[in-house]
Amino acid sequence: MTKEWIADQFRLLQDRICTQLELVDGKEKFQEDNWIREEGGGGRTRTFKQGAVIEKGGVAFSEVYGPVSETMRKQLNLDGKEFFATGVSIVLHPNNPHVPIIHMNVRYFELDNGTYWFGGGIDLTPHYIVESQAKDFHLGLKEICDKYHPDFYSKYKPWADSYFFIPHRQEARGIGGIFYDHIDESCGVNKENLFQFAIDLGDAFPVLYKHQVELGKNKPFTEQELVWRNIRRGRYVEFNLVHDRGTKFGLFSGGRTESILMSLPPDASWEYQFVIPANSKESSTNEILMHPVDWLSR
Amino acid sequence: MTKEWIADQFRLLQDRICTQLELVDGKEKFQEDNWIREEGGGGRTRTFKQGAVIEKGGVAFSEVYGPVSETMRKQLNLDGKEFFATGVSIVLHPNNPHVPIIHMNVRYFELDNGTYWFGGGIDLTPHYIVESQAKDFHLGLKEICDKYHPDFYSKYKPWADSYFFIPHRQEARGIGGIFYDHIDESCGVNKENLFQFAIDLGDAFPVLYKHQVELGKNKPFTEQELVWRNIRRGRYVEFNLVHDRGTKFGLFSGGRTESILMSLPPDASWEYQFVIPANSKESSTNEILMHPVDWLSR
Repeated sequence: MTKEWIADQFRLLQDRICTQLELVDGKEKFQEDNWIREEGGGGRTRTFKQGAVIEKGGVAFSEVYGPVSETMRKQLNLDGKEFFATGVSIVLHPNNPHVPIIHMNVRYFELDNGTYWFGGGIDLTPHYIVESQAKDFHLGLKEICDKYHPDFYSKYKPWADSYFFIPHRQEARGIGGIFYDHIDESCGVNKENLFQFAIDLGDAFPVLYKHQVELGKNKPFTEQELVWRNIRRGRYVEFNLVHDRGTKFGLFSGGRTESILMSLPPDASWEYQFVIPANSKESSTNEILMHPVDWLSR
Repeated sequence: MTKEWIADQFRLLQDRICTQLELVDGKEKFQEDNWIREEGGGGRTRTFKQGAVIEKGGVAFSEVYGPVSETMRKQLNLDGKEFFATGVSIVLHPNNPHVPIIHMNVRYFELDNGTYWFGGGIDLTPHYIVESQAKDFHLGLKEICDKYHPDFYSKYKPWADSYFFIPHRQEARGIGGIFYDHIDESCGVNKENLFQFAIDLGDAFPVLYKHQVELGKNKPFTEQELVWRNIRRGRYVEFNLVHDRGTKFGLFSGGRTESILMSLPPDASWEYQFVIPANSKESSTNEILMHPVDWLSR
């Protein structure tokens, strides 16, 4: 299993996901940009706008390599001289406030000193949390995790809760999902299966999202619900620009800005001390975001 | 000149600025929030929304003190045990794309080991740059600087250019202004006059802004110009959340989130690889932002 082969498989995964997402949307198609990284490698960024369901989104593949820079050495605490990194990264912002925002990432990293690791995860950010849908989502993730290791879900679920947390708001970005990083065979699963886990997550992604879309896309929505959607989008921007390690590393290490910031929503709003009406759908969503939930025991 | 007296003067400055800005807007009034900081001190945050000119804005006063925390020691490289900090901070987002966004800050910092310093500045972010207005703005700033030291403008103007720069976009946030930090009497101006310089800048702020408002507020604008305004607002969000040291320090050190993020626009947009039409007002603004300009020699 060479690194180039893994990259090829990730590229094919991007293809399959895009095909499925175009079916989920039913109206628009992805636009493609190929780009080259001066120091080595490049990527294929696919973006989507003004679909029937997805207002803005992107599915990015990249395969980059070259010397480990000073920034990488410091920020990623790396030991080798040459690195290789490949992955698929997705964020989708739907138009309807009753359809959740979703994010997925699978990545593989290798150094010339022989070390390698996988990282990834999927997490969901509903503008309005529907408990049964949150449970469906987590059940789907647990099912995939369980195929590979009985502890994956119980380890990677709280990892997502702690990663997708906005400290300055003291709230979760959404209902979480799973997150893992720097995982190699020392976790008890061999490299082939860790790779297969990433691919499985990637192929499950459009299936899990389709379920969420079907349950929300035909719900009518009001102007007030759009206001709330945009406030939630604002929090998404805050998380990504202030806290997300991948975004910050990308921007500070000279990554391709447009591909990195493809994760930002089409628009977002901020209001000073936005007042959430008491006993509303907004307030119940907000309360759930303040405390991590064990969805499978609900 | 005690620290408490300086804080009182800054509080009075906030009053005068708010009175003047309400006259500039002509329609709405500021709302006031008083808050207390658990570890010592507090603030008075005044916010403004949906005015005739100013769509969203804030003028914040704060006076905070107490033990130097670990975060402060690291991030601010501080030596003392107890600190005292007071200042006035302003960001205004106008509705009309032909009126610029403006930011001002004056602050005073003191440690129990006897050291103190002043910091501050004013900078302008036009959605559409009008060269004569940019020149007016810089002339106004130079006039104030020159009253205190012949080198202030020539030092603090490039400091603003380098501070208000968005590296991941390789563009300036706006047309700059002046910025200074960690300034004490070793700059050749005594403490009383450094204080007076801050007060002078504060009182000049509404006058400088009024001039910009008068020249833009009655210009009609199109839907396309609103799209561009919101793209520019998106860049403002990127600067503040990714790069602004004050914002980052505030959020990471447990500051009052709503007062810190009062600087964000009412809304903002992001489009993947937004296409700026060739030979347009948008493209000429964009070109100016790519290279710092010596406005006074234009």
